[in-house]
Amino acid sequence: MSARAVHVAVVGGDATAGDDSCAAAFEVGRELARRGCVLVCGGLGGVMEAACRGAAGEGGLTVGLLPGSDRSEGNPHLSVAIATGMGEMRNALVVRASDVVIAIGGGHGTLSEIAFALKTGRPVVGLGTWDLARAGGPDGGLIACADPVAAVESALRAGGLGSTSPG
Amino acid sequence: MSARAVHVAVVGGDATAGDDSCAAAFEVGRELARRGCVLVCGGLGGVMEAACRGAAGEGGLTVGLLPGSDRSEGNPHLSVAIATGMGEMRNALVVRASDVVIAIGGGHGTLSEIAFALKTGRPVVGLGTWDLARAGGPDGGLIACADPVAAVESALRAGGLGSTSPG
Amino acid sequence: MSARAVHVAVVGGDATAGDDSCAAAFEVGRELARRGCVLVCGGLGGVMEAACRGAAGEGGLTVGLLPGSDRSEGNPHLSVAIATGMGEMRNALVVRASDVVIAIGGGHGTLSEIAFALKTGRPVVGLGTWDLARAGGPDGGLIACADPVAAVESALRAGGLGSTSPG
Amino acid sequence: MSARAVHVAVVGGDATAGDDSCAAAFEVGRELARRGCVLVCGGLGGVMEAACRGAAGEGGLTVGLLPGSDRSEGNPHLSVAIATGMGEMRNALVVRASDVVIAIGGGHGTLSEIAFALKTGRPVVGLGTWDLARAGGPDGGLIACADPVAAVESALRAGGLGSTSPG
Repeated sequence: MSARAVHVAVVGGDATAGDDSCAAAFEVGRELARRGCVLVCGGLGGVMEAACRGAAGEGGLTVGLLPGSDRSEGNPHLSVAIATGMGEMRNALVVRASDVVIAIGGGHGTLSEIAFALKTGRPVVGLGTWDLARAGGPDGGLIACADPVAAVESALRAGGLGSTSPG
Repeated sequence: MSARAVHVAVVGGDATAGDDSCAAAFEVGRELARRGCVLVCGGLGGVMEAACRGAAGEGGLTVGLLPGSDRSEGNPHLSVAIATGMGEMRNALVVRASDVVIAIGGGHGTLSEIAFALKTGRPVVGLGTWDLARAGGPDGGLIACADPVAAVESALRAGGLGSTSPG
Repeated sequence: MSARAVHVAVVGGDATAGDDSCAAAFEVGRELARRGCVLVCGGLGGVMEAACRGAAGEGGLTVGLLPGSDRSEGNPHLSVAIATGMGEMRNALVVRASDVVIAIGGGHGTLSEIAFALKTGRPVVGLGTWDLARAGGPDGGLIACADPVAAVESALRAGGLGSTSPG
Repeated sequence: MSARAVHVAVVGGDATAGDDSCAAAFEVGRELARRGCVLVCGGLGGVMEAACRGAAGEGGLTVGLLPGSDRSEGNPHLSVAIATGMGEMRNALVVRASDVVIAIGGGHGTLSEIAFALKTGRPVVGLGTWDLARAGGPDGGLIACADPVAAVESALRAGGLGSTSPG
């Protein structure tokens, strides 16, 4: 039952995302689908679309929580597109819908998702994304990884979700 | 691509729903799945669960937008469960995520979904649900139907969604 | 301390509201302010603006929860305007922010607020608004009143809020 | 008209906030009230309460957007308390309701508000809060200040809001 599967949010930039971030997102999506995870994202282009394309190619389930009110704004690799009409506030929904978050590159919207995840106790794994530090020193909340497969493995392990092997 | 399929919200009572409502919901869910529609609901028991059970039995895709923050509160027939943490406010999300709404029985929560759908221009088909009237006379917004298959047909027709035949 | 005062939502139509509804809303707003209540509304024109104008003329505090992202869309009689950017979903916020609801005329948006209030256990008083009925007969949830002062008195009494006298 | 006044969000830690942060928040609140600004916050204790106390002492208007559904959870210095029932998602509402944000100390919730503000184009001024940096170097989005009065001045200037003098 897919609602019982591990839900992983993949967050990162939209149109402004670089090629490296999109390539990494594609591999993260593919790896998540191979492990039977549900991929949750903001539903738009860039990193979101690349991750969905990777997952869809492996038959994975992809869920997009869109900022606008029109479902057709979703990228073409979504299994389910939910038009929230909540604007950037939907970033909090993306996180709530997930057990663990993988952040790839990204700007201030991605930072809001990282922060919301840490605030609500979800592990966050980063690939070339924000470095968190506050007055007094670095914040140990985010687990930095160097490559997509390691990121997926770290995410599942950090969530106490076992190290599911690819099928 | 399921995100491109017609999305139909099925709304109605939770634990308090009567047997008749649940039986109708089961048939509505089954009929929607046969026609390739995505079923969207509030994710809990009663009418929501019966509709999902009907759809799941035909291999349909079912999406639950839960009021709480815990995905495991979703009924066992959901393909995708989204924990919104927004309480009853998620009723508005259920409607926004859909092209058309079928209301079955139901209490004040269902009434809020009927009203929100009509406010935002979505057709609403009713099966044994509210009668809308305001000072000055009846409100013609809701299309009353007598049986589940007719309700699904009316919903798709009202949404200008063609009269897709069962596969 | 005004956050401790009774919060009353006044809901009803926007630009489409008739003169009678607006006149009643003005009196309701004036009466609420005289009794020291905080008036909560959707912040726009029509019934909302008339109620705020009535309250503001008596030095009352008025709060508008706007659907859009631009605070300047609020009517000119708001003490506090909150741009929610949530569209019609903000109707649920208007109700949550209140102890009791007074509905005046209104369309489907108003009906969603009445329903949401009843669902969440808040008393609703109506002035020339919806008649609630469902399969099986009328719904006793809404308290119909004939004039603005009686509506305010009923609202406060239904909320167990004592029959505060005008100052 | 206070809805026309500049709205400034003061964000920071709740019970976990240190004495220094609370002392700074008190002065920020006081200074904002002297300049006729409306203070918007998350409505709870710590930095939020200290800022409200400072503002209230000068007769300023303070608005709290609470995470829960119970208005009585608000701190005692709120002019208006809105129970959103949206949990941490209300952080996005706090930002949307404001023209400019002042962040004081704070944890991951505060970071989400900083990020959401920058994403939506609002200036953010920081007092002993997060240092933003991402792969490739520091992020210039946040304006760091050393003392409360300078923070208020920077916030108003950054928002193109003139350098209003204290009354």
